[in-house]
Amino acid sequence: MNSKKKVSIAVVRRLPRYYRYLSDLLELDITRISSKELSARMGITASQIRQDLNCFGGFGQQGYGYNVESLFNEIGNILGLNNKFQMIIIGAGHMGQALANYSNFEKRGYKLVGIFDVDPGLIGKKIKNIEIEHYDKLEEFVKHHRVDVAILSVPYDRTRMVADKVASLGIKGLWNFSPMDLKIPYDVVIENVHLSDSLMVLGYRLNEKFKCKKNK
Amino acid sequence: MNSKKKVSIAVVRRLPRYYRYLSDLLELDITRISSKELSARMGITASQIRQDLNCFGGFGQQGYGYNVESLFNEIGNILGLNNKFQMIIIGAGHMGQALANYSNFEKRGYKLVGIFDVDPGLIGKKIKNIEIEHYDKLEEFVKHHRVDVAILSVPYDRTRMVADKVASLGIKGLWNFSPMDLKIPYDVVIENVHLSDSLMVLGYRLNEKFKCKKNK
Repeated sequence: MNSKKKVSIAVVRRLPRYYRYLSDLLELDITRISSKELSARMGITASQIRQDLNCFGGFGQQGYGYNVESLFNEIGNILGLNNKFQMIIIGAGHMGQALANYSNFEKRGYKLVGIFDVDPGLIGKKIKNIEIEHYDKLEEFVKHHRVDVAILSVPYDRTRMVADKVASLGIKGLWNFSPMDLKIPYDVVIENVHLSDSLMVLGYRLNEKFKCKKNK
Repeated sequence: MNSKKKVSIAVVRRLPRYYRYLSDLLELDITRISSKELSARMGITASQIRQDLNCFGGFGQQGYGYNVESLFNEIGNILGLNNKFQMIIIGAGHMGQALANYSNFEKRGYKLVGIFDVDPGLIGKKIKNIEIEHYDKLEEFVKHHRVDVAILSVPYDRTRMVADKVASLGIKGLWNFSPMDLKIPYDVVIENVHLSDSLMVLGYRLNEKFKCKKNK
């Protein structure tokens, strides 16, 4: 197993999908799968799958397929799902609260440790046993707790200011839900979530699928 | 211009990103860009960019680059951002309300026309001038309004039931926010949103970037 090898970011971005599909297979008690079968399920070419999974070596055998459980575990390791990242949410509006209530974080290697907002109506409210604190207390909080990742779910025009603050406090990861494609001149890893990207793809696929019918 | 040509879904999934980057360039009054410059900005190889954008033909000129505005408009057309899809939200919890308040739908070719939930505490509440109605009224609503797309933001264990209902009412597109990778045996286009995919990628990138420092 060659999990220490550097894997390209394009491959890494496909790993969560492999991970989800392999998890489904495990639930169906499927222990081996060929790249061809996986291809049919996932809608990725078999050749792409072989190329991607070759990055990890040792799982595929010609004519025999992949060992589902080993591959699942290895991809989980590579994605670092056994991490113990500590995470805070900044901005406890609807999106922030939806994320705070999201139950999958632990399975992904993250633990929610704090929630911050500026709205007096929200301060003191508890979500999953975590009390929403005022944003002014963030600096103090970070002095006493290790914080690896901050989720930004603040209004568009506050995003940059909050991101700068977070970076200046030494927080190393940002999961950004603002529609702003955030780039900041700090040593910080940022994942920007673009919800409307998949909405645009949905529109394209609807047009492709139904345009013939429309034109009838 | 060859916008009628069938474009592969892998390319289509990259289009929203091109669209966002080109939009940034337009705001900076940049009128032409080479695949090399675009590559540096986007972190995609120049060769991949040329291959992707060749699907649409007529924009790149050797040594001269792409016309930003034409490419931006063409990608917008291909993505169908001038659609007038009518959309409803089913499930007005935190995620549903966050989405209802999301202001970018119109720019992406969608118009929100209805919101449904089962919680008596939510029925009658207005979001963006749309009154939340009881889920029981969905069928009646669809009889009197064209609905092209439903956003599903319901609890995990209700997802399949609601998806079946929506499909049986003839709604052709589903934007699914449940953690369930929804596949249903109907003639429906589904985009599943997997928020935790980007969270896993963030974890990977954090480990890659900081593991050397950790090991010191």
